[in-house]
Amino acid sequence: MYQIPRGTRDFTSEEMQKRKLIEENIRSSFKNYGYKEVKTPIFETLELFTAKSGEAIISEIYSFSDKSGRNLALRPELTAPTIRLYVDKLQMEPKPLKLYYFGNCYRYDRPQKGRYREFTQAGCEIIGVDTPESTAELIAMGYNILKNTGLKNIELNIGDLNILSIIFEKLRLSKENQQYLVPLIDKSMFEEVLNALSDFGINSKDASIFVEILQTDDIEKIREYIKDSKKAKEEISKLNDVLTILKESLKIKYKIKMSIVRGLDYYKGIVFEIEAPDLGAERQLCGGGAYELIPLFGGTETPTAGFAIGFDRTILALEHEKYVFPTMKTDVYIIPVNKDMINISIEIAQTLRKKNLIVDIDLMRRGVSKSLKYASSIKTSKAIIIGPKELEKNIATIRDMTSGEQVSIKIKEISEYFQG
Amino acid sequence: MYQIPRGTRDFTSEEMQKRKLIEENIRSSFKNYGYKEVKTPIFETLELFTAKSGEAIISEIYSFSDKSGRNLALRPELTAPTIRLYVDKLQMEPKPLKLYYFGNCYRYDRPQKGRYREFTQAGCEIIGVDTPESTAELIAMGYNILKNTGLKNIELNIGDLNILSIIFEKLRLSKENQQYLVPLIDKSMFEEVLNALSDFGINSKDASIFVEILQTDDIEKIREYIKDSKKAKEEISKLNDVLTILKESLKIKYKIKMSIVRGLDYYKGIVFEIEAPDLGAERQLCGGGAYELIPLFGGTETPTAGFAIGFDRTILALEHEKYVFPTMKTDVYIIPVNKDMINISIEIAQTLRKKNLIVDIDLMRRGVSKSLKYASSIKTSKAIIIGPKELEKNIATIRDMTSGEQVSIKIKEISEYFQG
Repeated sequence: MYQIPRGTRDFTSEEMQKRKLIEENIRSSFKNYGYKEVKTPIFETLELFTAKSGEAIISEIYSFSDKSGRNLALRPELTAPTIRLYVDKLQMEPKPLKLYYFGNCYRYDRPQKGRYREFTQAGCEIIGVDTPESTAELIAMGYNILKNTGLKNIELNIGDLNILSIIFEKLRLSKENQQYLVPLIDKSMFEEVLNALSDFGINSKDASIFVEILQTDDIEKIREYIKDSKKAKEEISKLNDVLTILKESLKIKYKIKMSIVRGLDYYKGIVFEIEAPDLGAERQLCGGGAYELIPLFGGTETPTAGFAIGFDRTILALEHEKYVFPTMKTDVYIIPVNKDMINISIEIAQTLRKKNLIVDIDLMRRGVSKSLKYASSIKTSKAIIIGPKELEKNIATIRDMTSGEQVSIKIKEISEYFQG
Repeated sequence: MYQIPRGTRDFTSEEMQKRKLIEENIRSSFKNYGYKEVKTPIFETLELFTAKSGEAIISEIYSFSDKSGRNLALRPELTAPTIRLYVDKLQMEPKPLKLYYFGNCYRYDRPQKGRYREFTQAGCEIIGVDTPESTAELIAMGYNILKNTGLKNIELNIGDLNILSIIFEKLRLSKENQQYLVPLIDKSMFEEVLNALSDFGINSKDASIFVEILQTDDIEKIREYIKDSKKAKEEISKLNDVLTILKESLKIKYKIKMSIVRGLDYYKGIVFEIEAPDLGAERQLCGGGAYELIPLFGGTETPTAGFAIGFDRTILALEHEKYVFPTMKTDVYIIPVNKDMINISIEIAQTLRKKNLIVDIDLMRRGVSKSLKYASSIKTSKAIIIGPKELEKNIATIRDMTSGEQVSIKIKEISEYFQG
């Protein structure tokens, strides 16, 4: 009768079990790298997001006025809120600050496979440091978080916006022409890039070398291509320092991909993306890099880098790889054979729950066979049947729900029985 | 520069540590009782909430139109969404269904101590059963969830709306006069109740007995007061069955409190509230009972009961009781004495992280003494110092950050050292 809002989802207990498992796995990885969780409200003032991403973002987000006329917006991402929190409350904390978050975001997109209006992001920001080892650790963490979830087939691509802009300089393109190319490059639409370059009057040889450089994984080729630039040597060397640590100390496999632009003009320097290549249009699981936002939000300039992981897509990728999610079982289901057995059954349930077991009990007085059927349907390991004759002798029957084997046991020894 | 929206809060890592700890503790309790988590969107169609609570609720919630003109609202509570989910997707599941949720809700209230516009609720619904043992188990679970968080001083009060309406009948009050009294009774404003009854023409003796019955903890007095009612015997007996299980099998302490109304007209039968008596105006931590919502949402009628716990107030109550929240420590902080020690330091960090240890590393090249100071500030148990002379001999120094004691250890034995 009442429908769920378009582009949003309900999660039943089966789906929640999967999601919580992976969520806690991701949290655990962040913690292992010394990151600490922060949480911000689900909505912010609209101007926080327009300041970061421009007025155009208004058409892509849920914005609304509250009853006092304040313009608010459901957060479309979590970097702006996290940096607002930092500027507001954490500027005096010892650096570096390693912050992570896990929460829902909202975009007023056209819903499609793998794209929802309500979606979940896990991500982090490291504030106050930009050494090669800090950048390498950040990238490795993103990669390892996804690996630790159980994903097998993921690819890490690393780009560099400073080097990309030096590559652009080679063709002496106007700012306008560059802006036209950027989204094409970001989507790896290289045919269209070649056509555009031809329209811009670039000769076909220069154009095809340019496109080759954007696609090469060979840093020496890139170095050679931009060797005339004074800045190039320094930028390549900075990138190389990060790559060396990634490869040699962190043992992470990556590809160079200068065509990564990440569509956001606040990124600077090294950027990276992690993809599940089998997922087609939903392949990108993680994206991040170094960026600058603190001064715009009124804070004192300090280096910042971070990334966000698409949690829903990570689940999708795991399902695509046929990852076997462990199912949550009910440890014990207790069946009072009749009304007079209810009290003792409840007492046994409470004792076992105190031992942190998952314990359910027949609350519907439906007899043994129907109760066993229900116990089966909720995936129970053991059933305890409390019958009148047995109760007289202070014993109960424990049934293994997989094998069907039954044993009799003294009621006061049940707690011990479930110790092991 | 950009402010957090009024009535909402940021949670820094210290606060998040507390909150996650208690959140997971609550989840674990729900699971032990066989409840399974579900999740619904943060917003719903506005009419879902007006159907449940009437048009008046619009003034108390965040409602807005999306770009297609749909009227949406940030959820003010989680029972309506959970029952919508049930009607939509879970009606065919084996009964009883034990569902729990944990999530944020939104009310456009005047912000004040313990009341926020964004707040967190933990709660549950049991669908398909209303035996005395199912009601007793539900109430006991609410009580034990709060006890298991570590709270010491909480009080459980149990009322019954069916019995309350029989009590009302004794005075032959008009519906209008009853409606005037209900909020006064709910807030235990018994002086005002007496004044109103006098205005309604009730003699002072009858009025004072009525008010006494609303306040008594003695079920025999209540039974005696309404003994002329045919329905009374049955209702008292039903309540007594629940109370007996609570007391004798579940060992839960409670008080009878017929003045519980819970302000919501969809409740019916037994209702209960759990309070932290020291918290003044924010004393109510949990409220619930049996209710009817499924037919209104287009589903097939079946018994429902549930409760919601105010998570923020639970934290407040724990803080008020000076509960000592365990602080999250960094297990290991690794300090490369100079640049050449960075690679080996990173490798050690990765090895220890794989053992699920919380490991941080100096990413700022700031030398031993400053690094030790930082390690201290992030509450580290042990620091590993990698110096050039030691590295030549393949050893490292491990410093206990509490005692200051240092030991030398072979680098390849570090992993084993942290085993224990």
